[in-house]
Formats: sequence, C-alpha cells, structure tokens
Amino acid sequence: MGPGPSNPYPEVVAALTRPLLGHLDPAFLEVLDETCARLRVVFGTDNGLTLPISGTGSAGMEAALVNVVRPGDPVVVGVNGLFGERICEIAQRQGATVVRVDAPWGEPLDPDELSSAHPAPAVIALVHAETSTGVRNDVDAVAARKGDALLVVDTVTSLGGMEVAVDTWGVDIAYSGTQKCLGVPPGLAPLTMGERARARQVERPASWYLDLGLISRYVEGEGGRTYHHTAPVSMIFALHAGLGVLLDEGLAQTWARHESSGRMLQHGLEAMGLGLVAPKDHRLAQLTTVYVPEDLPNGWGEADVRRELLQRFDIEIGGGVGPLAGRAWRIGCMGHVARTANVTLLLAALSEVLGR
Amino acid sequence: MGPGPSNPYPEVVAALTRPLLGHLDPAFLEVLDETCARLRVVFGTDNGLTLPISGTGSAGMEAALVNVVRPGDPVVVGVNGLFGERICEIAQRQGATVVRVDAPWGEPLDPDELSSAHPAPAVIALVHAETSTGVRNDVDAVAARKGDALLVVDTVTSLGGMEVAVDTWGVDIAYSGTQKCLGVPPGLAPLTMGERARARQVERPASWYLDLGLISRYVEGEGGRTYHHTAPVSMIFALHAGLGVLLDEGLAQTWARHESSGRMLQHGLEAMGLGLVAPKDHRLAQLTTVYVPEDLPNGWGEADVRRELLQRFDIEIGGGVGPLAGRAWRIGCMGHVARTANVTLLLAALSEVLGR
Repeated sequence: MGPGPSNPYPEVVAALTRPLLGHLDPAFLEVLDETCARLRVVFGTDNGLTLPISGTGSAGMEAALVNVVRPGDPVVVGVNGLFGERICEIAQRQGATVVRVDAPWGEPLDPDELSSAHPAPAVIALVHAETSTGVRNDVDAVAARKGDALLVVDTVTSLGGMEVAVDTWGVDIAYSGTQKCLGVPPGLAPLTMGERARARQVERPASWYLDLGLISRYVEGEGGRTYHHTAPVSMIFALHAGLGVLLDEGLAQTWARHESSGRMLQHGLEAMGLGLVAPKDHRLAQLTTVYVPEDLPNGWGEADVRRELLQRFDIEIGGGVGPLAGRAWRIGCMGHVARTANVTLLLAALSEVLGR
Repeated sequence: MGPGPSNPYPEVVAALTRPLLGHLDPAFLEVLDETCARLRVVFGTDNGLTLPISGTGSAGMEAALVNVVRPGDPVVVGVNGLFGERICEIAQRQGATVVRVDAPWGEPLDPDELSSAHPAPAVIALVHAETSTGVRNDVDAVAARKGDALLVVDTVTSLGGMEVAVDTWGVDIAYSGTQKCLGVPPGLAPLTMGERARARQVERPASWYLDLGLISRYVEGEGGRTYHHTAPVSMIFALHAGLGVLLDEGLAQTWARHESSGRMLQHGLEAMGLGLVAPKDHRLAQLTTVYVPEDLPNGWGEADVRRELLQRFDIEIGGGVGPLAGRAWRIGCMGHVARTANVTLLLAALSEVLGR
C-alpha cells in the first residue's frame, strides 16, 4: 500500500510465466496489437500511436518530451510536486526554455496561470495525479485553454484508477506506468500520442531508444514490422493480462473501486485524528498523503512506524518526499490493492502501531 | 533458436512470480545488490558501478554513450554489422564526430585500423559478438591499443555465452541484454562502467532516464538510497535467478555448453551441405549465420522455411538482416537453449523441411 509499485493482479503474475515468444513472432504481435487496443480504451483515445514504451514511467516522460521539444522551445510546466520538477529537468536537458508555474506542494495548479504563463508555448506539461502529494490537477481545464500548444500529461498514478479522457479533453501526449492503478509490475510506460503532436514530431530526437518515429514502424507496422529494439515480451504479456482484468471488470467499475477504497481510507485516517495533506476538492482517492502526528509512541520517528508496519504486518506504506519528507506518509490504494478489505487491515495495523 | 530472445531458464520463469516488493524495500535492495554482485562475476570486473539498466539492450547502448560522449567528441566506431551501425547512429545523436571503421558484414574488424583511425579519439566503440552476422570481434586486441580513449563494448550476445573479461582486457564500459546467453526475458540491460570512464562522465547527459550519475545514487547508495526511477522489480528478480543458474553451473562450464552446442550445430549444417557466413577463426558458437541454399523445395523463399519450422515444429530461427536479408538464416544456441539435444531436434527438423 505504498505509492507504487502496487501488488499485481494474480492473472498478471500468471501471464509473466507464459512461454516466451520472439518479438517478431506472429502470435506475439497479436498480443502486442491487442495490448495497444486495450490501452486505447483505458486512455480514452483513438490515437493510432498508443503503445507500451520499453522502460518505466520516467522513460515514458522522457519519450513524451524528447519527441516534441526542440532546443529553445518555450515549455510551460506546472510544478506542484516531484514529478512536475522532473518534467522541468527533462525538458531543460532537451534545451527547452522552461517556464515554471508553481503551486505549493499539496495544492493544485491554477489552469489560468498555466495558460497565461507564456504567449506562445510549444508545449504545456503537467501531472494529472501527483504521486508525491496526492493532489489531482485539473487537466480538462488546462486542455480547454491550451491554444496552439501541445498538451503533455503525466498519468502515471491516474491511468486505470480514475477518469482519463485523452480525446475528449484534448490531450496531445499522455504517458503512464504499469505499476500503479494498472496492477502490473513496474517496467513499461504506456504512452499515447495524437495526430497534432505527430505533425510536430522532432525528426531525429536526442534519444534513439525513445524515438517514436522509429518505434512506430515496429508497433504500428502496417504491411510489415521494422525491428527497432527487442520488445520486453514477458512484461507485455503481463500488461496485456492486467488490462484484460481491468476491462473485464469495466473501466467505470475499476474507477469506482479505487474511489470507494481511497475514501474509506481517508475517513478512517481522519477518524483516527490524523490530518490529510491534499484539499478535499483535489484529493486523489488512489494515493493519500497524511500528516505524521507529533505524538508518536516510543519516541519513534515516522520511518519507525513504516518499519513496524512492514515487519509486523507485511504492509508497506511510503514516506513523504520533498517538503513533505519526514512530515507525511503516502498510502496507495491502487490496482489489485484497491479493495476495502485491505483498507480495513491497514487501518487496524496503523491504529495498533500508533496506539490510537 | 532465433537470434534472441532465447527461452528463459525455468528458475527464471519461477522468479518472475515472486511476490512483488517495493523498490526501496530492504529485502528487494538485497536482491538488487546480489544481482549487481553476480553481474560483476559474469562481466569479469570489480567495477562498483555494475547494474541492470531499466530497458532492453539498446537502452544499455544508449546509456553507455550518452554518459561519456560530448558534442564534437571524435568517436571511432567499428562497423561490421547492424549493431555497429546503431552505435554510430546513437553517437551522432549526441553530437559526436563519428569516425567509422568498416569491415564487410561477415568479416571481423581489424584492431589496428580501429586504433589508428583517429589520433585522439574520446571513445572507441565496437560490438564483441555481432548478432547480425555471427562474427566475433577481437576486443582484447582493440583494448590493448586503445591509448587514452575510453573503450565501449557491446556484449549483448556474448555475455554469459563466452569469455568476457572487462578488467583483464581493459574495457571501460560494457553493456549487454538479458535475453541472449543469460537466459532471461528481454527487458534489462546489464552495464558496467570503470573508474576511468567515471572520471570523464558527462555531468548532465541529454537523457535523464539513463543518467548514470543519478542512477548510481540509487544502485550503489552507500549510506542511503536516493530514488531515481521505480526499478523494474520482477525483471530484476528474473535476472537475479538467471545469474544464479549460470553461476551454479559455473561460468566456464556455461561457456563450454554454448561452445559445444554451437559447434555441433555448425558441423551439422555443413554436413547438410550448407555454407556458413562467418570465417572459422571468428565464428561465434552461440549465434550461427548460415547461407540459404539456392534449391529450396516447393518454390519456397527463405521465410517459408522459417514459417514451416515454426508451424510444424515450434522452432523459431531468425532471418538475415542488412546485406544478409533473404540470403542467410540466424540460429541461436543461447542460455537455456544452448543444449545439444535442441541442436539434434533443429537439425532433424531443418533436414525434413529442406528435403536434405
């Protein structure tokens, strides 16, 4: 129940053991195509270029940026947590002129500030669900104000756990990770890129490994697949299976399960007298940040509480990062873990450890 | 029995299903440390910075180059196959002045040509075992002549299947992939980097995801681990297990198994009247390139033969690439697959299909 990786679905674990196939085997290519089709449903998009990038969520972030950012491009980045910071760092390494729009950690970004930060940004980028703070940013409102800019959205902690509507909102590139609400081990970064972004694609990005122009010839490959790199076959089997579980349950039902378990957790924490970091109207269900109380037993620090939960109950929760380091815990209800029974157990264990 | 991915060891498949742990869980960090220690044995190195990069072999190639190549750097690249070409492409994207040293596909590189191609190269890079041609290049001879340059070596198809002696030879950076002679699914790129290379490391490489300066703070992390990106936990379990199988068997014994099965295959192919591409003194055992005979039955092309092997016998072999496309097959004896029993089966199946 940390901020990810979450425990994978049993069907995902089984899929990891499927007999390995070659990356050009017709039977594997069918699984790959079906995986991309399933990702389109979860992203809410018809984008042809929708695929798992062969790396973790941060590789998805880098792929999103290196393929559309050119040296000197003004790139507006919303920063209200660790992953907004990371977007700045990666955009700067591409030579972008980064225009930061900050909000305090724990508060949402202001969509108007983002849209008015620069007269003609090439890209506006923000994080949908900040894993570092538990805050939701209003992607739809930013999309409505994006103007001529491309909108790049980090959906690492939102995809599969709450509504993501790439086409309806007007998101040009979205990326995610497998290890949060999709219930698959870490290792792949689902990504989708619309026609507007493809029309402005960098011809020869600094990264060959993440060059979507080349990768698309393997993944889309109508009339023949051009080998780019060896696909991580077993992990794609796992993602295929995880998306299958999710779509069998139903996208709306999966979102509802994340919502109900997260809200139950938050009520339970408040009932224990603990304070939540994120404001109610922008509080994620799947990732909860809660303040560490001042009166910990036995003279413990916050890390001791996490150690007790892990050693005595086999339950992992995460520590705070950045300005919240030492001051907050991060508790995930994501993917297979997002069930009220797990919340009951965690609340009981935490209550026992805290003596509350 | 294609050019990779090879079928994983059963112990590796089992390890993929180990209960997932967080990337900062002490129990996982132990597995990670042990994986790095095992990689040191297989690479033949004491390098502290020895780790699995979170991507496939090509991510290892990109990581090796982006961390030491600066714009304008003269980089000498040996090219006698597809992966030498790829090194040129990635080095150019870093702004390097690439000095190519070519040999015909199917022939080895000339170490003297490599060392005399430029008066003061920043980097000399070559492929140890060319997956596209089945040729071994003399890394030790190039290392002996490298002068002040850093030597970067691709060991994707050699590591675990034949001698790789990073420290003895004097290789500064070597990288590999998991899906060849290590008997693990594709998805990770083992990499090792020596002190000489670390002293010349690019401070802020174009790639954040592959920035070894940052990654080392998580992987080496004495006195505390600094989170960089979420480690691909299940794949690291798999690599840990694959290296365990290999070291239990013994490094020299594993090399010998690759050698004997590969040579048996080559004798069998020649006995069938087929011609081998690579010259005998630089012919890999683990990856064999064989010319397609002109007199295929039923008016078949070479792809029809591969399709028959796959459909009738569940055996995959690879087609040729580059100048060898349509003219050669590539047959792997790598990792768990490198056993004489498999060679017997393949030779029987091929003989049946070819009517020879």
